Amino acid sequence: MMQTPLILSSFITRAERFFPNKMVISRTSEETIQRFTYKEWAKRTRKLSNVLTELGMEKGTKVGTFAWNHHRHLEAYFAVPCTGAILHMINIRLSPEHILYIINHAEDEILLVDEEFFPHLEKMAPFLKTVKHFVIMSDSKELPETTLQNVHSYEALLEQASDEYDYPEDLDENTPAGLCYTSATTGQPKGIIYTHRGLVLHSYALGLSDAMGIRERDIAMSVVPMFHVNAWGMPFAGVFFGTSQVLPGPGFNPSVLLDLIESEKVTITAGVPTIWLAVLKELQQKPRDISSLRGIVCGGSASPKGLIRAFEEQYKIPFIVGYGMTETTPLVSMSVLTSAMDDLTIDERIEMRATQGLTMPGLDTRVVNENGEVPWDGETMGELTVKGPWIASEYYKDERTEEAFKDGWLYTGDIAVMTPDGYLKLTDRTKDLIKSGGEWISSVDLENALMTHESVYEAAVIAVPHEKWMERPLACVVLKENVVDDDSKKEELKEYLKGQFASWWVPDEILFVKEIPKTSVGKFLKAALRDQLQDHYAVK
Amino acid sequence: MMQTPLILSSFITRAERFFPNKMVISRTSEETIQRFTYKEWAKRTRKLSNVLTELGMEKGTKVGTFAWNHHRHLEAYFAVPCTGAILHMINIRLSPEHILYIINHAEDEILLVDEEFFPHLEKMAPFLKTVKHFVIMSDSKELPETTLQNVHSYEALLEQASDEYDYPEDLDENTPAGLCYTSATTGQPKGIIYTHRGLVLHSYALGLSDAMGIRERDIAMSVVPMFHVNAWGMPFAGVFFGTSQVLPGPGFNPSVLLDLIESEKVTITAGVPTIWLAVLKELQQKPRDISSLRGIVCGGSASPKGLIRAFEEQYKIPFIVGYGMTETTPLVSMSVLTSAMDDLTIDERIEMRATQGLTMPGLDTRVVNENGEVPWDGETMGELTVKGPWIASEYYKDERTEEAFKDGWLYTGDIAVMTPDGYLKLTDRTKDLIKSGGEWISSVDLENALMTHESVYEAAVIAVPHEKWMERPLACVVLKENVVDDDSKKEELKEYLKGQFASWWVPDEILFVKEIPKTSVGKFLKAALRDQLQDHYAVK
Repeated sequence: MMQTPLILSSFITRAERFFPNKMVISRTSEETIQRFTYKEWAKRTRKLSNVLTELGMEKGTKVGTFAWNHHRHLEAYFAVPCTGAILHMINIRLSPEHILYIINHAEDEILLVDEEFFPHLEKMAPFLKTVKHFVIMSDSKELPETTLQNVHSYEALLEQASDEYDYPEDLDENTPAGLCYTSATTGQPKGIIYTHRGLVLHSYALGLSDAMGIRERDIAMSVVPMFHVNAWGMPFAGVFFGTSQVLPGPGFNPSVLLDLIESEKVTITAGVPTIWLAVLKELQQKPRDISSLRGIVCGGSASPKGLIRAFEEQYKIPFIVGYGMTETTPLVSMSVLTSAMDDLTIDERIEMRATQGLTMPGLDTRVVNENGEVPWDGETMGELTVKGPWIASEYYKDERTEEAFKDGWLYTGDIAVMTPDGYLKLTDRTKDLIKSGGEWISSVDLENALMTHESVYEAAVIAVPHEKWMERPLACVVLKENVVDDDSKKEELKEYLKGQFASWWVPDEILFVKEIPKTSVGKFLKAALRDQLQDHYAVK
Repeated sequence: MMQTPLILSSFITRAERFFPNKMVISRTSEETIQRFTYKEWAKRTRKLSNVLTELGMEKGTKVGTFAWNHHRHLEAYFAVPCTGAILHMINIRLSPEHILYIINHAEDEILLVDEEFFPHLEKMAPFLKTVKHFVIMSDSKELPETTLQNVHSYEALLEQASDEYDYPEDLDENTPAGLCYTSATTGQPKGIIYTHRGLVLHSYALGLSDAMGIRERDIAMSVVPMFHVNAWGMPFAGVFFGTSQVLPGPGFNPSVLLDLIESEKVTITAGVPTIWLAVLKELQQKPRDISSLRGIVCGGSASPKGLIRAFEEQYKIPFIVGYGMTETTPLVSMSVLTSAMDDLTIDERIEMRATQGLTMPGLDTRVVNENGEVPWDGETMGELTVKGPWIASEYYKDERTEEAFKDGWLYTGDIAVMTPDGYLKLTDRTKDLIKSGGEWISSVDLENALMTHESVYEAAVIAVPHEKWMERPLACVVLKENVVDDDSKKEELKEYLKGQFASWWVPDEILFVKEIPKTSVGKFLKAALRDQLQDHYAVK
């Protein structure tokens, strides 16, 4: 067989040759939606490669992006790696300290920055050790006022650049293409390198009928940020399959997303549960026509069953839970339903949809405890481990590699069970698991149960130190609007849980809070809750 | 990223873990349909690996199969390559001389043979230079009478074998896995090696929504023989995606196929046009319920539009033309319709379906003439060239490699045009093209036009030497039953063509024949017609 490498530049060629008129629809501000055909987009992408090469980008150079989801970010997604350089997608929601750390650790030489974020980076500039150029991504060619040297306008540079660039066809498919950092429990964020090979194979997986089935006739909207694990691979797969893409830009809210779904006839979209909870709320207040959707993909943390039910039952839209992490590119599994599940009741179907689903073709997963792989009984907990060609093998220049990568497997730090059907079901993060009186309690199971109660908007359950039991669960609950937060409601919720769990699982206390603190990507920040409430049972 | 190799043994692991109850349905004789779950099939496959290892199979050993489509052949498809050995799928329809040549050229050491074919091989035995063992594939454990040594019963050997075998997980993905030979215009057949990497990537392509979309809930029937280019990859993809497979076994006919579609609720199937023409005829004589079908894939030679229309219009089943060859694993392109074609009339849709379609994601195609790539005007002819990770780079130990493989491209020998939509449309084989008075005439276009006429069952148009024009087209036509084959019918057909082509394209003569000679895989054997008729215009 030919030794044709699996590289991203082949995606540009494909989109430009076969789907020149399919669209990149880019919301660049509250008032502006820009539209580019793939033919135009490909030209702009090659222009950007020339611009960056002119600024000193070579094979292996790290180019950072600090940006929302828009066409310029999509151009960078290809213009950087297709030349052999590395795209570092900086998570704008990290703390300034962490952002400073990762830019220096990655040794970014050029930063592509949305104009609104430039002031933040400007302040950091004295501490950035390797950055030589800032390129401001904005519809305008005017530069913001700054005392910094080497600040350029993206559009001004593109205007003068040639749209011809011969991407190397013989690039080794194991060449690094992308880089993302993920927050660590302790210490600085950890970096993961994505290779061309990994991203190409991941794109094939996204196109499979049994996965997301991304295809030419889709109109795909990545709500998940492009600074977060390759926006789950959708921008790459979209170009590969000639799929029109809707990029919702800066400062979007549920109303903007629903308007885009309606006006652009979006067929598939992906984001975290907190987004879809808010979208559902908005949709119920102000109905839109979302019948173009053939699926909503949801990941990043557990999806409340009430959310799944609302979309599946009320709107007849498959609500598919996916699982992955920064270390896994990210797609590991999806709650697609097999033919054996055709006769499930709606309740049983939602039960399956709420799991993390079936392992993707090409990957291997094992849930392991001290006795090896756990039985597929849906009950025995263990740590989820993953292996495959789009799974990281190390943290980038980081000693913590050996904590997570052992015997050829990634140890995810997620506690899971395997159902009799082979569906993964997360029960907790290793660090969120509650060990009470020597037995494990799943905080996620309790949270999911609480969130099916009609009064509850969100709930987080954490482990709090306890004199007698070592740890006891404590529930922090955000009630829905207009629900009275009195003691009788607390009792009602506890009774609700008693109907579903062993009595010792039920939290001794329920706290009503205004909101659950969340991580930069919308996950519950339980560490913060734990810090805040660690003396709760002691104080009493 | 992890350096997990793309190897076929991962497919067995996947099917066994996640789809243990999906089925391999195997018609092993006129009376017998055997059923195995993937769990059982995987055990039998590992038993076969042990059996063959016991018979001397090592890494790189060639093991030949001489068999129909059945579960044992599917076991061999994995049991041989997963150990690092090479499966040689022998085309049973080649001439005895060619079969002898390819077994010796491949240096097969073990042959897995259907009992009905054993007498043929027995006769060849004295001339087989490397074969050490014959294993008879039959439901029975009894051996046929023979004077040969080292003849074994497949089932008897399996019965005694262990079902445990640890396939090497670190096999290099570029290890040869399969070998097929393709007939050459002149000389002996040419061999093509398939690697694990190529077959795995090809399987991903088969699962894409925009290609065949093979998925868990399909019931896939490979009508295309498993001795012909990996049965177009369906047996591999089926195991990968946990798809139940129906294998129609020996001596099937249209009636058997239709009965299987109806009784097993087949959802997708693939084969050559001559099969589907015969199936259609049978279906019209004796209707069956084929509503379970979501698609029929057709390739190997051009599909008559009447055939496409019948399935698309009358039975509402997408009839998708695919293109490929032994050198391409084989899937190169498929006539899937893009979203831009949603508003086509039925006639326009059939027009697109009849093309060879869109190039698969991951491959590159170019139609080239002496000026480079031809314009996408649907008219300018050139030779189709292909590149990609499941395209061969050479013929196995054969000096003819350099004729077909040049500058990193496979020169297919097929003459094609590219439509404005980027769809490939074959107009001829280089060797079948008719050059009349210095201009090219496409024999395929004329054949396709003739086959849309209500009186015509099949038609082949060949180039015949001509004193004045160098070559002129001559049409050989098989009329439908009960159509009178008189001169007025000949005139009617010529008039029919005049309405569609320039007058100099229209064959001066039409011959009515009883059948068109066909190759071992059902393609028109125009070389035989040319030999037979080369003096036709001279004699007159």
